[in-house]
Amino acid sequence: MKIYYAMSISGNQSEGSEEANKAFIETLKKYGEVLTEHFSNPSLIGIGESKLTNKGIHDRDMEWLLSADVIVAEVSNASLGVGYEIGRAVENGKKILCLRRKQKGRLSAMISGCERLELREYENLDDGILFIDEYFKLNNSGK
Amino acid sequence: MKIYYAMSISGNQSEGSEEANKAFIETLKKYGEVLTEHFSNPSLIGIGESKLTNKGIHDRDMEWLLSADVIVAEVSNASLGVGYEIGRAVENGKKILCLRRKQKGRLSAMISGCERLELREYENLDDGILFIDEYFKLNNSGK
Repeated sequence: MKIYYAMSISGNQSEGSEEANKAFIETLKKYGEVLTEHFSNPSLIGIGESKLTNKGIHDRDMEWLLSADVIVAEVSNASLGVGYEIGRAVENGKKILCLRRKQKGRLSAMISGCERLELREYENLDDGILFIDEYFKLNNSGK
Repeated sequence: MKIYYAMSISGNQSEGSEEANKAFIETLKKYGEVLTEHFSNPSLIGIGESKLTNKGIHDRDMEWLLSADVIVAEVSNASLGVGYEIGRAVENGKKILCLRRKQKGRLSAMISGCERLELREYENLDDGILFIDEYFKLNNSGK
């Protein structure tokens, strides 16, 4: 199984995001190949990937997204890139799991009101990991 | 012509965003019907639209987006909703103009590296308005 993990890179990173991304990617590796595993490399956070052009990054990520069986998106932070990836994943009929840390701020209705994705709100990392485990056990049960 | 103006609502609003959205929507009204004109109502900023369910907002906005001839997106702020709308607009072959205030922060490569949209960076509101005028004059010239 190929998994595309979407997370905020150029956008805002709230406290705890780095740990969450690492923990979620490690968990996902139990269920398949995480195409975007390198996203959790701290040196990419905030500055993006300096070796590729923007078009190069976009096209590579879209190729990965379109080849993936499942998209798992961390949506605790406002992010144009993550929103874009979810929008394209919806149009391409991908399975989508969104994970969001419980917080005061309101989540965009484009995510919370989209019936084509599953959204789980986690209190802490253990919670988030549990949601991933549940999701993949359910979604693999038919195989 | 139907125009869908996409802007950050639940996400971050940086200083000057409100004025920019109002000015850009006023400019767009010269070229067609702005389906999302009410987005620039300050009472919606930050709290979202309390009278509709999230699914109601999502489905109404998607109906508008899919019926629009052109999407104009203000991408100065990180926003899951705006990113999502751009992703779905790309997949549906819509014309897309993105406007961004020049700033230090890096724009997501999903936007800056996407060849399916036009991106213009403005210094000030007059600049932004000029970009809108240029875009619509060019895009209407064939009609």
